[in-house]
Amino acid sequence: MDNFADRLVEVIRKKQSCVIVGLDPRLDLIPESIRSAKSLDASSIAQILLSFNKAIIDIVADYAVGVKPQSAFYEQYGWWGVKSFWETCAYAREKGLITIADVKRGDVPSTAEAYAKAYLEPKDIDAITVNPFLGSDSIQPFVKVAKENGKGIFILVKTSNAGSKDFQDKILNDGKKFYTFLAGQVALWGKELVGKSSYSSLGAVVGATFPEESRALRSLMPEQFFLVPGYGAQGGKAEDIKASFNKDGLGAVINASRSVIHAYQDPNRKDWKDAVRDAVMKMKQDIQNHIR
Amino acid sequence: MDNFADRLVEVIRKKQSCVIVGLDPRLDLIPESIRSAKSLDASSIAQILLSFNKAIIDIVADYAVGVKPQSAFYEQYGWWGVKSFWETCAYAREKGLITIADVKRGDVPSTAEAYAKAYLEPKDIDAITVNPFLGSDSIQPFVKVAKENGKGIFILVKTSNAGSKDFQDKILNDGKKFYTFLAGQVALWGKELVGKSSYSSLGAVVGATFPEESRALRSLMPEQFFLVPGYGAQGGKAEDIKASFNKDGLGAVINASRSVIHAYQDPNRKDWKDAVRDAVMKMKQDIQNHIR
Repeated sequence: MDNFADRLVEVIRKKQSCVIVGLDPRLDLIPESIRSAKSLDASSIAQILLSFNKAIIDIVADYAVGVKPQSAFYEQYGWWGVKSFWETCAYAREKGLITIADVKRGDVPSTAEAYAKAYLEPKDIDAITVNPFLGSDSIQPFVKVAKENGKGIFILVKTSNAGSKDFQDKILNDGKKFYTFLAGQVALWGKELVGKSSYSSLGAVVGATFPEESRALRSLMPEQFFLVPGYGAQGGKAEDIKASFNKDGLGAVINASRSVIHAYQDPNRKDWKDAVRDAVMKMKQDIQNHIR
Repeated sequence: MDNFADRLVEVIRKKQSCVIVGLDPRLDLIPESIRSAKSLDASSIAQILLSFNKAIIDIVADYAVGVKPQSAFYEQYGWWGVKSFWETCAYAREKGLITIADVKRGDVPSTAEAYAKAYLEPKDIDAITVNPFLGSDSIQPFVKVAKENGKGIFILVKTSNAGSKDFQDKILNDGKKFYTFLAGQVALWGKELVGKSSYSSLGAVVGATFPEESRALRSLMPEQFFLVPGYGAQGGKAEDIKASFNKDGLGAVINASRSVIHAYQDPNRKDWKDAVRDAVMKMKQDIQNHIR
């Protein structure tokens, strides 16, 4: 079975990109041309989300290494929404994109095993995000199923929201911040998933909005790929995300959602696809300029 | 709009029970009579889960105050599974049961808002579990939507698994354990959801497996309802869960999953329903005996 991190490195090198496009579609921002003449029950909305995502995927496939659908925006429309979530993943894979399901699951071991099977066994998802709050035994089922299926997991370490300081930054009795302790655990958990690329298929979520923290975390987790949310709409800049990369120019993938998929802002704009293409191309180049 | 905690207190008093039945069905343990003559694609499995859950709900409706479907066991079967999750919730509500969706969601504010709408706006779910790892701003959207819709949320504070010690028990620089700090936050967050019963619709998940911790947490969160997992199969005993209650005999609901819904163990057993009924009746009485 292939190693997820090795596959990720291969795609990054081939495409000369470390862009992940977050598929968090907002109904009121979806272009009129896709929304028109549809009633708004859950099944129609799910169809609209899928049509929009397919259009976005077609545009970004040449410039991005992967997509990251955020499950909440699909669960919001019940099982119809969940259906379009899975169909979106399938379409992205068909187009050669890595799929990272942003589900942030985490639970007691027997339940974590069910979540691991739910998301890491099907072929259309390459990796998921995992919430570590329940401890080591809640992570192990994800590690096991990822290993068996050549899949990846990204553990939340330092998230991009302002409130991440509330618990993740708490100072422990040894004077260290909680997230640095957690980073040490992540580095250990990741050992058994290290591939030929020297990167582990167990990575970390580290927000783009805290460059100093990213620098500290980079040295604590040299083998981890960072999944970096917060670029663009949330305020993270390319010069800041430089701290998330290793000296080999690898070790991070950068996610932008709204600033790419809704780059056109005005849903009536006829050339909305051009705006999306411009945004993803510009983002790709902006990041490449800073990590070279 | 009714307050969730007030409704919960009313049902507890009426039924003289604080039992929640966890609907975490395992396909290989579902009675042959329900599984027979069905092919095992995701749609058939979803139908089997729903049929089983309906049978369980019919049996436990007189003895339990509510049910807690664990989302992972449905997500495992894709959108078909999610469909049966929602249909299960609808059926349980029809039968007068409180429905607690065990989804343990938690995300950055804009995404948390989507999750809150997904689970706290539809009528068939009364309350959900929430993971606090992302901090205060990730909790606020749940509080807002819960308030607007008379719904409840249970924040993870101390989970029932052995690994809960890894992060939840970390000692902070003031000498306190992390979960006691978190409990203080939960008590504050809950203030704006306190009902006429003096209980808040913002409760806490506190495992049955750590009675000493429960005692400490009870005094830190006097207004919180505790959702207590871990009774039965996970080793929690009625004498231990006594620590989760206030002196008024209220303040906790106790969940058992496997030890009730798969009480018969042998799926070939013809009188499996009797075993389930015995288990839920015994659990109800066992707990009532200890809290009087």
